[in-house]
Amino acid sequence: MSNQAPIGVFDSGVGGLTVAREIMRQIPDEKIIYFGDTARVPYGSKSQFTIIRFVRQIVRFLETRDVKAIVVACNTASAYALETIEREIHIPIIGVVKPGARTAVAATENGRIGVIATDATIRSGMYTRYILSLNPDLAVYGKACPLFVPLVEEGMLHDHVTEEIANRYLDELKKQDIDTLILGCTHYPLLRSLIGRCMGISVQLVNPAYETAVSLRELLQEKHLLADPVPEGETVHHEFYVSDGAEKFEIFANSILPYDIRKTQVVDIEAF
Amino acid sequence: MSNQAPIGVFDSGVGGLTVAREIMRQIPDEKIIYFGDTARVPYGSKSQFTIIRFVRQIVRFLETRDVKAIVVACNTASAYALETIEREIHIPIIGVVKPGARTAVAATENGRIGVIATDATIRSGMYTRYILSLNPDLAVYGKACPLFVPLVEEGMLHDHVTEEIANRYLDELKKQDIDTLILGCTHYPLLRSLIGRCMGISVQLVNPAYETAVSLRELLQEKHLLADPVPEGETVHHEFYVSDGAEKFEIFANSILPYDIRKTQVVDIEAF
Repeated sequence: MSNQAPIGVFDSGVGGLTVAREIMRQIPDEKIIYFGDTARVPYGSKSQFTIIRFVRQIVRFLETRDVKAIVVACNTASAYALETIEREIHIPIIGVVKPGARTAVAATENGRIGVIATDATIRSGMYTRYILSLNPDLAVYGKACPLFVPLVEEGMLHDHVTEEIANRYLDELKKQDIDTLILGCTHYPLLRSLIGRCMGISVQLVNPAYETAVSLRELLQEKHLLADPVPEGETVHHEFYVSDGAEKFEIFANSILPYDIRKTQVVDIEAF
Repeated sequence: MSNQAPIGVFDSGVGGLTVAREIMRQIPDEKIIYFGDTARVPYGSKSQFTIIRFVRQIVRFLETRDVKAIVVACNTASAYALETIEREIHIPIIGVVKPGARTAVAATENGRIGVIATDATIRSGMYTRYILSLNPDLAVYGKACPLFVPLVEEGMLHDHVTEEIANRYLDELKKQDIDTLILGCTHYPLLRSLIGRCMGISVQLVNPAYETAVSLRELLQEKHLLADPVPEGETVHHEFYVSDGAEKFEIFANSILPYDIRKTQVVDIEAF
């Protein structure tokens, strides 16, 4: 395995770009192959069986691109498929759930942690299980927020309707006196300021994307797979693939990433 | 082709059950094979290319069940895939767009028709094209309402938040002085009373499901394919298939259909 090989990063759609952006910031010498499963998005309402099948196809596609490591930049796929897939492949693979959980465990002072995520991620119980495996004395409260993704995709990031819905979803977490809240879906950091207002300044918000990039760097270092520094004057050319709607993907991507994507390719993912 | 063969009805998910329900009411002797593509729902945000590919797989599955006719109980699939698919198969196939459009054309008095639907259906321009082919003097105003489906799926049918969002979406249609509004997505009839309140009593709401069942009966009659009357004391056993999450589908189905579904089977639709 060459340290100059790219890193595969995937999500059910565009949300994982918040993780890709964090990797670009923290380890800028790494080339990313991003795949967004826009033909079958969202995953958050689907079953474990189906999500594992989708993730297997995506991993097979990324393997054809000779990636040296894979980042599951999707909470639902991390929660439902990571444990199965990591037993099936020979390259390192990490998800967003464990890094997010570790950060929250380190951050909480009163031992009460909240998790907001898709229906599937909450149902999986993965955040709770992993947090308790790190420290069984903590209390974890999960809450599914199914409308957050469509509201973000409608661009209603600073809308009073979104704030009202957020208040309803978050009300029971507020009553649990949590001091730390994991934003357990890659879309949610885009609602960070609004969620922060709802929860109040005493609650710390954890974005797993940041910690995932830290974990990835450590992993690459440990396995002697960190890319060589990019020569002065050259830039890394990341590649972007989707299963549908390249144009729509690029519009969203260009609003999130620090530079404009030029060419997104459509892949027939069901063929993998 | 036997007149005792079943009718295939499909949708991207659960919404098409509002069409299946109407068929059960109007032609109760017909047996239905329903397929909901719950693994890849929703279609409304996806491209024509992908939707045609999905519909081809579903039609191939329904053909293995020996259906005598197919109803595309999904506005997006009707708008994007019907014209292509009907050239490829030998059994009759109808969608919901044309019946809905015909009803609206017959109903309007001031010649100003509104259409609300998913982003993909509105982008296709299919309702507008077909309405104008029936009467080029009419004016048609389309509006995509992307949050309606997730709001319905959250059960927020009578919520003031849903009403506020509806008012925003419908405001520009109200300004166009329409007297007829097509509910161009199978989920929307579940918001009928709320949409009616927003639009006012002078606007007629058209639910394409009703007219689709009328068209289906006419088609079967014309082709001598109407099923024989069910003998006294016997009942028709409809069959339900999904690509994911049978249990969740049944919960929704049992809230819509006049009787409880007993056994929903999961199909690997990508294999067709």
